[in-house]
Amino acid sequence: MMNVAQCRALIESTKLFVFDCDGVIWRGATLIDGVADALDGLRRHGKRVAFITNNSTKTRANFVKKFHGLGLTWVERDDVWSSASAAAAYLTQRAKLDKSRKVYVVGQSGLCEELCEAGYTVLGGPDDEGSSVFPVPERFEVDPAVGAVVVGFDRAINYYKLAYATMCARENKDCLFLATNRDAITHLNDEQEFPGGGTMVAALETAIGRAPEVAGKPSPFLVDALYAFHGLDRDSAHAVMVGDRLDTDIIFGNTNNMATLLVMSGVTRQSHVDATQPGEDDYPTYIAPSLKLLADTLAEM
Amino acid sequence: MMNVAQCRALIESTKLFVFDCDGVIWRGATLIDGVADALDGLRRHGKRVAFITNNSTKTRANFVKKFHGLGLTWVERDDVWSSASAAAAYLTQRAKLDKSRKVYVVGQSGLCEELCEAGYTVLGGPDDEGSSVFPVPERFEVDPAVGAVVVGFDRAINYYKLAYATMCARENKDCLFLATNRDAITHLNDEQEFPGGGTMVAALETAIGRAPEVAGKPSPFLVDALYAFHGLDRDSAHAVMVGDRLDTDIIFGNTNNMATLLVMSGVTRQSHVDATQPGEDDYPTYIAPSLKLLADTLAEM
Repeated sequence: MMNVAQCRALIESTKLFVFDCDGVIWRGATLIDGVADALDGLRRHGKRVAFITNNSTKTRANFVKKFHGLGLTWVERDDVWSSASAAAAYLTQRAKLDKSRKVYVVGQSGLCEELCEAGYTVLGGPDDEGSSVFPVPERFEVDPAVGAVVVGFDRAINYYKLAYATMCARENKDCLFLATNRDAITHLNDEQEFPGGGTMVAALETAIGRAPEVAGKPSPFLVDALYAFHGLDRDSAHAVMVGDRLDTDIIFGNTNNMATLLVMSGVTRQSHVDATQPGEDDYPTYIAPSLKLLADTLAEM
Repeated sequence: MMNVAQCRALIESTKLFVFDCDGVIWRGATLIDGVADALDGLRRHGKRVAFITNNSTKTRANFVKKFHGLGLTWVERDDVWSSASAAAAYLTQRAKLDKSRKVYVVGQSGLCEELCEAGYTVLGGPDDEGSSVFPVPERFEVDPAVGAVVVGFDRAINYYKLAYATMCARENKDCLFLATNRDAITHLNDEQEFPGGGTMVAALETAIGRAPEVAGKPSPFLVDALYAFHGLDRDSAHAVMVGDRLDTDIIFGNTNNMATLLVMSGVTRQSHVDATQPGEDDYPTYIAPSLKLLADTLAEM
């Protein structure tokens, strides 16, 4: 566990704190102890903060509402980086997909809305929920203007969507294939691991026959976009990734030249930590029980 | 291309001819030229024949009906090996799954029927088509008696099925995870490549976190079951696999100690053949335009 002196040194040397949300900031509908004070303290010391989440089903506006509801009323849309907004940023900034080209979505409304806000005409998503059973035509026609297939978590996944996305990616010229994220599992309730967005991605990867680009964690694109937004340089960003998962957050930070702080307020148990090895991508630089350690340290600074 | 002398030698040295169906025996609803005479000739010369298909959506009874409708009225259920019947055989013969354990199916009615006929209580399949949208419970309960999840091509795939199968495989003790086949694409119409059963398998493999056993082509299980049925020994079976696809049929034969005969009456073009290399798993032993060469050769024998 990190001690107060180490925590103080980390705060002093860090320009940007990047936080995973679930298990770090909140658990379900509850703010985790110490979070409000930790964030206030960091901002008071002139630190930049950003929140990232691989949840692609909500818009940043939805997340801002959640932050406000938990009392973090200073949080703005630009502070939040979701895998849906990352996908939209990928299309505009990285792929430079012309706005005349449409986007076919296998995913939920939040993803569609982020892509619409970025200026794209969006097909699929909830509009194709009702098309699960369809007669097979002599030729399955797709809109030739579709220039990108974007896939995220979709509880209304069906064969029509899989077929439409597959035909676009296989038959439309230069059609991009982009995943919001590849998380294998997701927690729809507190106890169990449900199929995550990575299951829809794997299905389409198989049918399309090529691997997707990835916009969210642990893709380096998200870091590049985040650093560009904050005017930071990748090599001297002095950023720290704070997360509760070794296999996503900590790997993401370690492979992107960030320090990593694992908090034990989420899904990771000591036995998981004991199974990691120094030098491995999932080995955290620091470990703390929760953000309360930051709050306490900042109170003394 | 194989000449008549080679064809004659192949027939003379072969005990068992294993035929893929689509593109070899029929194209859509049409019998391919020479097939009836070739099969009659082989049977007249005392050769054993078997038909195998990775289509898991129909029962063997359905296939027999198709054979009969095309004039091949001697074909019986035991002559047909589908990936659905292979899955049922896998559970009974290989996994020796007790009949008291239930089977959860992500797949269509033919697969469910084959598993029922094998003596299992089947859950899922078409019964769970209507469950695509469901409120997330505090705990997603699955039947603890489910001892195997079997996945095949499913045009009515939905999130409920993916979640149910995932929970069974992750939470039920010793729950088997079995795929009928992993074909990435399928031809629902003549022109296009649609997502195949392999897409549903990939989705579940991701969520479950382990690779499935496979019953159909190119799994060696299918060959073992076929040889056992015909009382043949794997090392001296003198079998030939006849197919129209390099990436499934020819690989299947080559990796299972069979001679392989590629027929050009299906999806493979000369350019595909030119891209194969001697010694590779997809390099066929022989190539013929269609089964008409067998028919013509047999007419002279």
